[in-house]
Amino acid sequence: MKLKEIGEFGFIERFKPLFNDLIQDNQIGIGDDCAIIPANETEDWVITTDLLVEDVHFLREAITPRQLGYKSLAVNLSDIAAMGGTPTGSFLSIAIPSSIDVEYLDEFMAGYHELSAKYGVALLGGDTTKSLKHLTINVCAMGKCAKGKARKRSMAQTGDLICVTGQLGDSAAGLKLLLEKSPRIAGYDYLLAKHHQPEPQIAEGLFLADISEVHAMMDISDGIASDLKHILKASGKAATIDVNKLPVSDILKNAAQTLDWNAEELAASGGEDYELLFTMAPENLETIQQQFAERFGKPLYVIGQIADGESIVSWMKGDKKTELGRSGFNHF
Amino acid sequence: MKLKEIGEFGFIERFKPLFNDLIQDNQIGIGDDCAIIPANETEDWVITTDLLVEDVHFLREAITPRQLGYKSLAVNLSDIAAMGGTPTGSFLSIAIPSSIDVEYLDEFMAGYHELSAKYGVALLGGDTTKSLKHLTINVCAMGKCAKGKARKRSMAQTGDLICVTGQLGDSAAGLKLLLEKSPRIAGYDYLLAKHHQPEPQIAEGLFLADISEVHAMMDISDGIASDLKHILKASGKAATIDVNKLPVSDILKNAAQTLDWNAEELAASGGEDYELLFTMAPENLETIQQQFAERFGKPLYVIGQIADGESIVSWMKGDKKTELGRSGFNHF
Repeated sequence: MKLKEIGEFGFIERFKPLFNDLIQDNQIGIGDDCAIIPANETEDWVITTDLLVEDVHFLREAITPRQLGYKSLAVNLSDIAAMGGTPTGSFLSIAIPSSIDVEYLDEFMAGYHELSAKYGVALLGGDTTKSLKHLTINVCAMGKCAKGKARKRSMAQTGDLICVTGQLGDSAAGLKLLLEKSPRIAGYDYLLAKHHQPEPQIAEGLFLADISEVHAMMDISDGIASDLKHILKASGKAATIDVNKLPVSDILKNAAQTLDWNAEELAASGGEDYELLFTMAPENLETIQQQFAERFGKPLYVIGQIADGESIVSWMKGDKKTELGRSGFNHF
Repeated sequence: MKLKEIGEFGFIERFKPLFNDLIQDNQIGIGDDCAIIPANETEDWVITTDLLVEDVHFLREAITPRQLGYKSLAVNLSDIAAMGGTPTGSFLSIAIPSSIDVEYLDEFMAGYHELSAKYGVALLGGDTTKSLKHLTINVCAMGKCAKGKARKRSMAQTGDLICVTGQLGDSAAGLKLLLEKSPRIAGYDYLLAKHHQPEPQIAEGLFLADISEVHAMMDISDGIASDLKHILKASGKAATIDVNKLPVSDILKNAAQTLDWNAEELAASGGEDYELLFTMAPENLETIQQQFAERFGKPLYVIGQIADGESIVSWMKGDKKTELGRSGFNHF
């Protein structure tokens, strides 16, 4: 049987039961943005790992080595942000083809260090080895949460509002510009930078984890159409999203108009935004939105609501039902 | 500049200073088999990561998927054994080319589970993704040590005996049989199994970490000629090894005779034995050797001694000086 018939999550479901009895009662393993492990009486560890493969996750000729170093860590710190954690350390493994020289690696490490220093994340170890063809990078990152306060995908409650911490679709638009070898339209550099150097929402995650109304949380890596389903499945809930409320940047709107793209579809299905997707009880929404805007200088966007039912997303355009053309990335 | 001009360790030395100020005083980062991080008042975490790349670390047609799953975890647990730690959890990242089917992955996970279950190691998370060509596996494993008891490479003392927990060179011989497409000589399967399914010396590491005479410790992944230098450099010491005392299996001796190989050279320079290499004060040697033999049914081999001086290994054959043809694997 081919892997693409069952996909990444079908594969995980095959082996997960085999390992169930090795997990201790006070640990949370596979199935969330991070594993959760008791640290001490007041804190939990949150730990994640992400693999980046050349020509699958990035094109070496398109991303600068400095951006690649930054992004390799950023996608991991984003998972820690999604738990409401503070990142503390990372482990970097890198398989290096002979076509890459030391100067490239110096730049890669400078980008990795730039983000490490921003959040005081120690580089604690790693592995460097040869690769015959593709540059391949694995990062394992760890962080800490106040005990029992990590936000899990399973925590969504009926009536919760569905929110995101920032604009969607810019990263996917940047990738599309690259893959379609588009002309250098207005906003080209902005959209490519959103794709090549995402910013983990660490401070936003910590802010949200401190608010009791905030329930389920995850980061947006495959696009909300795909990512939200994980929250719904884990929580046993349904959801309604109003496509009109998806936050889309003016730059993306203009690019979509110029190139005849569907900006809403990119915002709903495009991956790698690395904003946070979360659900929260509707009480005190205005106060929380105001505090968020004051603290971060950007709005907290409400895009839909959690409901009872099977784990299906109903897409609305105002009052009318609508359908989505794609459903996020399928990795295989 | 090409990476092979400076090698893996030259590369690490380039970026390590950049990250120094991010390490906390109570953490040990890059430079040992594992990082050491405080866990609680009585324990430390020991954490390691290893990357395995197809056609660099293994040949897909030679190793069974079950062996590959087992080995991917084993090489990491070996690093935890080298600190004297008890492994507790792992994270598995895997980049999968389309030529690999689900049945292959089922077998891979069965092998990974077999070793996980042997030591009660929980699979806590991971990442699965596509690869365009080579199967690539990264494991990050964590374990615990009694506080302050982890054995570091820097702990060797002048006069210490240099010891190993098992026979050397079998794994390198297995690889050589494969690469030279050798005929199926006597012991062929044994030597290949030593290469394809190494056994991490967890119980041996715990036993040794409990003995105050045991000082520096590491696992043998690149061959003692190369690995011992890390202990010497970290400890600021020199060493003498008696080639006559290198423990070589009868199977390897016979294979070497049949195929005109140098068994001593394989034992000294061949990689991937995953036995433990350690130094210990000579007091109570006989008692410790006796306890080790009773507990593990194999001898504790003394192969040399630590001395004052620059980090150089002097190779002896009894009383006479000798030279080694190779010096372990160079990864680039």
